[in-house]
Amino acid sequence: MSTPILYRQLADHYLSAIQAGTLACGERMPSVRKLMQLHHISLSTALQMCRYLEAQGWLEARPRSGYFVRQPRRMNLAPAAEPRPVKRIDPAQFVGIHERVSAIIAQGQRQVKVNLARATGAPELYPHQQLRQLTSSILRQHPYLLTKAISPGGNRELRAALAKRALDVGISTRADEVVITHGCIEALNLALRAVAHAGDVIAVESPTFYGLLQVLESLGMKALEIPTSPHTGISIEALELAMQTYDNIKAVVVVPHLQNPLGSIMPDTHKQRLVSLCEAQHIPLIEDDSYSALCNADNIPTACKHWDKSGNVIYCASLHKIMAPGLRIGWMLAGRWQARVDMFKYAQTRYNEELSQKVAAAFLQSTHYDRHLRRLRVTLRQQREKMAEAIARYFPEGTRFSMPDGGVSIWVEMPAYCSSQAVFDAALEQGILISPGLLYSNSNRFDHFLRINCGTHYSEELDAAMRNLGLIVAHQKPRKAVA
Amino acid sequence: MSTPILYRQLADHYLSAIQAGTLACGERMPSVRKLMQLHHISLSTALQMCRYLEAQGWLEARPRSGYFVRQPRRMNLAPAAEPRPVKRIDPAQFVGIHERVSAIIAQGQRQVKVNLARATGAPELYPHQQLRQLTSSILRQHPYLLTKAISPGGNRELRAALAKRALDVGISTRADEVVITHGCIEALNLALRAVAHAGDVIAVESPTFYGLLQVLESLGMKALEIPTSPHTGISIEALELAMQTYDNIKAVVVVPHLQNPLGSIMPDTHKQRLVSLCEAQHIPLIEDDSYSALCNADNIPTACKHWDKSGNVIYCASLHKIMAPGLRIGWMLAGRWQARVDMFKYAQTRYNEELSQKVAAAFLQSTHYDRHLRRLRVTLRQQREKMAEAIARYFPEGTRFSMPDGGVSIWVEMPAYCSSQAVFDAALEQGILISPGLLYSNSNRFDHFLRINCGTHYSEELDAAMRNLGLIVAHQKPRKAVA
Ligand SMILES: Cc1ncc(COP(=O)(O)O)c(C=O)c1O
Ligand SMILES: Cc1ncc(COP(=O)(O)O)c(C=O)c1O
Repeated sequence: MSTPILYRQLADHYLSAIQAGTLACGERMPSVRKLMQLHHISLSTALQMCRYLEAQGWLEARPRSGYFVRQPRRMNLAPAAEPRPVKRIDPAQFVGIHERVSAIIAQGQRQVKVNLARATGAPELYPHQQLRQLTSSILRQHPYLLTKAISPGGNRELRAALAKRALDVGISTRADEVVITHGCIEALNLALRAVAHAGDVIAVESPTFYGLLQVLESLGMKALEIPTSPHTGISIEALELAMQTYDNIKAVVVVPHLQNPLGSIMPDTHKQRLVSLCEAQHIPLIEDDSYSALCNADNIPTACKHWDKSGNVIYCASLHKIMAPGLRIGWMLAGRWQARVDMFKYAQTRYNEELSQKVAAAFLQSTHYDRHLRRLRVTLRQQREKMAEAIARYFPEGTRFSMPDGGVSIWVEMPAYCSSQAVFDAALEQGILISPGLLYSNSNRFDHFLRINCGTHYSEELDAAMRNLGLIVAHQKPRKAVA
Repeated sequence: MSTPILYRQLADHYLSAIQAGTLACGERMPSVRKLMQLHHISLSTALQMCRYLEAQGWLEARPRSGYFVRQPRRMNLAPAAEPRPVKRIDPAQFVGIHERVSAIIAQGQRQVKVNLARATGAPELYPHQQLRQLTSSILRQHPYLLTKAISPGGNRELRAALAKRALDVGISTRADEVVITHGCIEALNLALRAVAHAGDVIAVESPTFYGLLQVLESLGMKALEIPTSPHTGISIEALELAMQTYDNIKAVVVVPHLQNPLGSIMPDTHKQRLVSLCEAQHIPLIEDDSYSALCNADNIPTACKHWDKSGNVIYCASLHKIMAPGLRIGWMLAGRWQARVDMFKYAQTRYNEELSQKVAAAFLQSTHYDRHLRRLRVTLRQQREKMAEAIARYFPEGTRFSMPDGGVSIWVEMPAYCSSQAVFDAALEQGILISPGLLYSNSNRFDHFLRINCGTHYSEELDAAMRNLGLIVAHQKPRKAVA
């Protein structure tokens, strides 16, 4: 039996102990030394097990005192399940996610008191004051900025600032390779249009961000959904199998860091294997890195693009979720499709407005940016914990989730008989907007999931909303078999 | 012989007299009564003839004194030719305008002293100060505007203000039918994607705005170029013939008012016929109305969309050229394709930034907007006249152009042996950027044309540039037949 499986078995063992109350919240775990003795394991296996439970949110490391059990209220919640091992790949699906999403969005326009459907933090979490000041001062310096035709190619300073920021995720690039877009969503459109045509099959994570499914549908491309782990992201084995099964896969799209909705983070080894696999198969890899700056880790994780030797990876990102949800500034590095992407971008929307580009550039170049990110990460972590507690406290038995290692939301699995559409409808009646799991796949596989935003300060109003939401879920009844 | 042809014959007659110097600048034309006697024509034919020559810039009406000859320096310039009557429609072409345009744009990034290639007025011609003030005051009122996720659907006030403005061109619509886009260019993309697919043929004016040819190329659609008059716009006869010849035309795109590059304005009767023809043939009509607010006329002309009974016309417009070249705000009314367009817009770029939308809405709602437009029209008219004089003065014999009835540019026909690429290159050597005719068609039909911007105050520097440009054109040599 190989070590990785051993540590997971042990983790399960301790998890049951925690869930059974044998190890209560606040209690100290056996020391690493003790674990080694008890189970006849190596130091590294013992550490691996503890870190695994820590990543899951069940343990907390305290400097010089070892690991402690935490989050008692989550005790009745098992972690979200890994996808079942792949036997057969679902045939590529194309069922029209757009209608579902439009209906949900249209309903969400009604009077909403508590919005738990967002994929950003609350406005106060972003540097509104500095951005406002920069806007005013840039307009003072450039009085004709709003009435001057935009110079071609995107703002030079912004492209340079983003090229510099790309170093944080291990990418070295030049300003003139950076294409500024209207959000990451336009970057994904341009990337897909550059490498594929209507009718082509695109491999995506499952579940995945519904925006991506919409883009594919609007471009007439077909999504092939690949099983994806809430911990380690897309299954490389399943992807490999899919590539053997289908010969018309024209691209792979992944969100390696804080995947939406799972919150998973791909280990570096997986990212490397993915890059090599795609390169070997001559299939372009599109990397959507919208969230990596929101990872808890002190070091922002390394992008897939870092391992790209041949320009086969198209890197897409955005400032929308990490710096300014009111600005529509995305960007991309298009690898060997740069000329094509430049052409599509120009023909599709020309360039972004100069004012927002200049504001973003000035903020990125300042020391405020890093300070803002550090603060944002801490705040989001605290808010995720509050929300996790609330879910654990208010949701019925059988609810499961994994604590993501960063980001703005939690992906919650309700008992299998729940319908996210029914929960959505009932919640909306009470002015609570949630993002139902049915949006995250063309199949019905995630109909008993919800994505819950953690970007808002945990107030009494929010607590009341979570309690109501828990009651709504608890009132869902197992469907009776029809006689 | 029917009247329309008679008045044109007479106009030619008087034009020769003017060009020969028989009727000198400042001289009074025979009175309308005199013309009736002289040529045995009706009052209406006499008036038609005078107004025609007036529209061409050769006559000037003075209240209570009749018509006077004007613009002596333009005397050596014949008006631009009408397209030759159509015998055979060119097969749909798809030769890759994009490479030409990219090369031209890339070259134009070099140090340019005088930019005559723009399709907007100079920054000073737009309400920079008011837009700046509105920006600051809106940011004060809404401190979180830059950090708040954009609410779905586009800004309500802006959509309402644009719906109201649509009344000016004879369209009654509702705010919720207005789709806000990133410039008119995105509107054209969305319109074309809504009604056609890769491989389809789209009928366009010839010459046409190269941006449209790029959009078609990027979407894999084929442009079928329909002869277009510098006076009355697209030839309805030629279009009808094309529809009989090709059964795969999936849309018609026209710029009915101040067509780019011709400056032509379609008469109302033509617009009505066009709308009926497209409806009868079940071919969607896409109307690009980017410039109508810049027409000289006191009344903004009526949009094709006005005559649309069945939702077959998609109306696209923009504030980019008429209000704020620094804002990328376009808009559209998608007729019976609204749901499809909404979906494509959301999946392609989400919504425009809230700040620019609010600024635009506030300005449109104010009394400043109409005042701005009135002033802009007067200024542009004066500048066009100065430029026309300069062309007449400095360009060699054989140069021809028609004075457009509004807008920001003049379309100049050089002697047939000139190459717009050669002129472009030589001008750029001297820091002068022009827009070469070769960009305006997939064929080589307009290689001896230039589009010259008139949006800048006529300074000594500009005069020097025009003189140099005239010399460059004059130095072009007829190509010798190869032995
Ligand atoms: C994974 C992912 N990619 C892209 C987007 C869209 O990003 P943007 O708002 O920058 O267009 C989102 C937004 O929800 C997302 O979650
Ligand atoms: C006829 C026409 N349509 C559309 C456009 C593009 O408009 P916008 O800048 O609003 O995207 C232009 C710009 O040159 C144009 O001349």
